[in-house]
Amino acid sequence: MEILLAVAKTNKYATSESGDSVEVVERPNGGISVVMADGQSSGKGAKQISSLVVRKVISLLSEGVRDGAAARAASDYLFTERKGKVSSTLNIVSIDLQTATMVITRNNPLPVFIASNEEICAFDDECSPIGLYRDTRPLINEMPLEPGLTVVLFTDGLVHAGSRSGENLDIKTFLESQIEEQEEADPQKIADHLLSDAMQLDHGRPVDDISVVIIQVTSHKGDSVRRMTVQLPLN
Amino acid sequence: MEILLAVAKTNKYATSESGDSVEVVERPNGGISVVMADGQSSGKGAKQISSLVVRKVISLLSEGVRDGAAARAASDYLFTERKGKVSSTLNIVSIDLQTATMVITRNNPLPVFIASNEEICAFDDECSPIGLYRDTRPLINEMPLEPGLTVVLFTDGLVHAGSRSGENLDIKTFLESQIEEQEEADPQKIADHLLSDAMQLDHGRPVDDISVVIIQVTSHKGDSVRRMTVQLPLN
Repeated sequence: MEILLAVAKTNKYATSESGDSVEVVERPNGGISVVMADGQSSGKGAKQISSLVVRKVISLLSEGVRDGAAARAASDYLFTERKGKVSSTLNIVSIDLQTATMVITRNNPLPVFIASNEEICAFDDECSPIGLYRDTRPLINEMPLEPGLTVVLFTDGLVHAGSRSGENLDIKTFLESQIEEQEEADPQKIADHLLSDAMQLDHGRPVDDISVVIIQVTSHKGDSVRRMTVQLPLN
Repeated sequence: MEILLAVAKTNKYATSESGDSVEVVERPNGGISVVMADGQSSGKGAKQISSLVVRKVISLLSEGVRDGAAARAASDYLFTERKGKVSSTLNIVSIDLQTATMVITRNNPLPVFIASNEEICAFDDECSPIGLYRDTRPLINEMPLEPGLTVVLFTDGLVHAGSRSGENLDIKTFLESQIEEQEEADPQKIADHLLSDAMQLDHGRPVDDISVVIIQVTSHKGDSVRRMTVQLPLN
């Protein structure tokens, strides 16, 4: 098997900084985790919040702390730092090689889509963003690593795209079409496609920061080389 | 301009874990940093060391600490933790958008190759790995972000490839040929090519962990989308 992870990310129109943060970190007992946070409001203030949250989580994960505990720690930390006045969403998806599972942790009202072969379901039970209350707990979903498993998460910029003109993106239908077309579609292409559709609905001027993260388990048996690429446009 | 970063990484033959660690982190004042460490010896012990070093550095960088100070802190930390008995190499390359420069920090006897248009030079002044002595200082090289600038760094597995049969890889000549062929060659292809050449010299059984990192500044003006991909083969 092989894990493929893809991130595509853009800023709200006319802001120099995205309020979303996405980081990937290696797990000390094997595997990787991707952490995504969307800080309240936009621009510099939001970036500070989401970066504080993601930093706390990746630092704990890299010390071997479990995902749920890391999410709760980040919530308490943000609550303490900002006196319960500022919220942030938080998603963690981990490929945990110790348990051979994918672990999805959510402190985000938005759903996470989980596709396994021909079915797509939304992991959308109600849950709260972090930072506003004490004892905010994440929802956690764990499933075995199996080829064909694809997980799609995003920040609310993707959902709000087109809202100025009363349109919106049907993310689930789009994903269904992608999975029907090809069993193991390239995750970077899916992420790019979702992002560009959203930007089109916003006429190229996104009304909010948008981040899309896709993690796929494939049956591909390639070489034993780990690879990572980053593409960072400068203004 | 656009920054492209590529990492390719493989384990020493018959070890389940690479003793090298490579992580990428966003800089709080804009830009990204890639941190690479190679812990003494190989396998689990080496991984623990390199991961401790990289974790310390990315945690400091993400708090806004400057690269040189982060490298010195990591050295003191490793020295204190392991009582000066264990060493690790450390390289940091940062795209610093505050200063519009690329900052190369070295605590590694191996050179870092810097290509700018048609010339390749080695940043190879003598310097020590971290962890063995107090007051180990890194060497730092800073240059303006300009299209055509490419930086190539690697761990010693790349240099030792072929040593069993008395062969070795001429990395500089290879890079020169790549740059002559195309002004802005795809960094992932260069990294993959270097790694596969090294693995071939070792007859598919690398004598040491190998990591290759390439960072390129291109003149490409694409969309404003940040992208990241990770490919993680599972056994």
